[in-house]
Amino acid sequence: MARGARLDGNALRTQRTVERILGESLRLFNERGEAHVTAGMIAGALDMSPGNLYYHFRNKDQIVEQLFARFAERVDLDPPPVADAASAIENLWLYLHLMLEAIWEFRFLYRNLDDLLARNRKLRDPFNHILDRKRAVVIGLCEGLARAGSMRASADEIRVLAANVLVVATYWLNFQALRGRRDAVSPQDLGQGAYQVLALVSPYLQGDARRHLDRLGRQYLA
Amino acid sequence: MARGARLDGNALRTQRTVERILGESLRLFNERGEAHVTAGMIAGALDMSPGNLYYHFRNKDQIVEQLFARFAERVDLDPPPVADAASAIENLWLYLHLMLEAIWEFRFLYRNLDDLLARNRKLRDPFNHILDRKRAVVIGLCEGLARAGSMRASADEIRVLAANVLVVATYWLNFQALRGRRDAVSPQDLGQGAYQVLALVSPYLQGDARRHLDRLGRQYLA
Repeated sequence: MARGARLDGNALRTQRTVERILGESLRLFNERGEAHVTAGMIAGALDMSPGNLYYHFRNKDQIVEQLFARFAERVDLDPPPVADAASAIENLWLYLHLMLEAIWEFRFLYRNLDDLLARNRKLRDPFNHILDRKRAVVIGLCEGLARAGSMRASADEIRVLAANVLVVATYWLNFQALRGRRDAVSPQDLGQGAYQVLALVSPYLQGDARRHLDRLGRQYLA
Repeated sequence: MARGARLDGNALRTQRTVERILGESLRLFNERGEAHVTAGMIAGALDMSPGNLYYHFRNKDQIVEQLFARFAERVDLDPPPVADAASAIENLWLYLHLMLEAIWEFRFLYRNLDDLLARNRKLRDPFNHILDRKRAVVIGLCEGLARAGSMRASADEIRVLAANVLVVATYWLNFQALRGRRDAVSPQDLGQGAYQVLALVSPYLQGDARRHLDRLGRQYLA
């Protein structure tokens, strides 16, 4: 604790309650789908009176918005520019890994995405902002690989590739849920998703770079 | 009319009414989203009493199921096996073109797909059956190209590629709607979708085959 900071018991208790509500909401949203969870169910799961919950959050949408803000913070990453191909591939892999971890942790946002964004218009622009950022990062990493001679792709091909990376990363969990003939997705689906995304990039890579990426990708299938 | 066939006025009138209901439902579902259209709105748009509509269809789900059956018929295509690479690429392109036309014509099925399949469980297995068929066709076409020496891809790579083809083709319209900051998608979005899907296949192709596919793909951007 910083020197001079006051320990405010009330503020701490409030913060702890807010955290408990957000944590339990995230768990329930991920497990049952956000549309099937009410504020009352969240309060019930926490042994909390609905009044206490409504004291901290006006309604369920506000909980969703707070969780979305945390997701947005998690994925606000900017890989440093690198000169050599090996580092660019490590960066691409690490970036994708962190992205998919965040998507997994907040997976309720991605299930029934259209429905969620249609019902809560406030999330639409920030979500697109995140996609814009991801697109810029993927394009930047690919351009670095092309400059280093490790990727053979025109500027047009990189643009089209980046869009496909976003589509597969965004909808993979939905696709798995659709294909799996079951309601829940598993962490294995996420690993398969990472593999699918890396497979989009791989055919554009040359020699060592391609072998390096394919080796990293296969780790997800272990 | 075949010799000996009877002209049954009642059956013809019934058939014509069923067609009008299905046609108007498809138009409204595509325009407004299936969830926002009621059976009453369909009857109203046709200047038909709700009773008359309910005489032909028990409820809106039954209309959706009939439209789905027509969509399934439309995409039940089986490209003939071919020996040379040029024909295989023409087949791939034609297959994709017909697929995307059908997706466009019945685009309400693809918007809020998870939601629709969650609400109408009867559509889930047939939809997966269509995806299974599409997957088999894409794999077959790629294997033909690999045998002809026009595609450099292992059996594993073809499997992963086919999954990415399905994801991008299935979710492209949703992604565009999300990205477009508007509710409606346009036929241009579909052309871009075809281009995106062909771009998945292109980097695995060699020489003439790749140039041929890229040329076909660019037609969609015109």
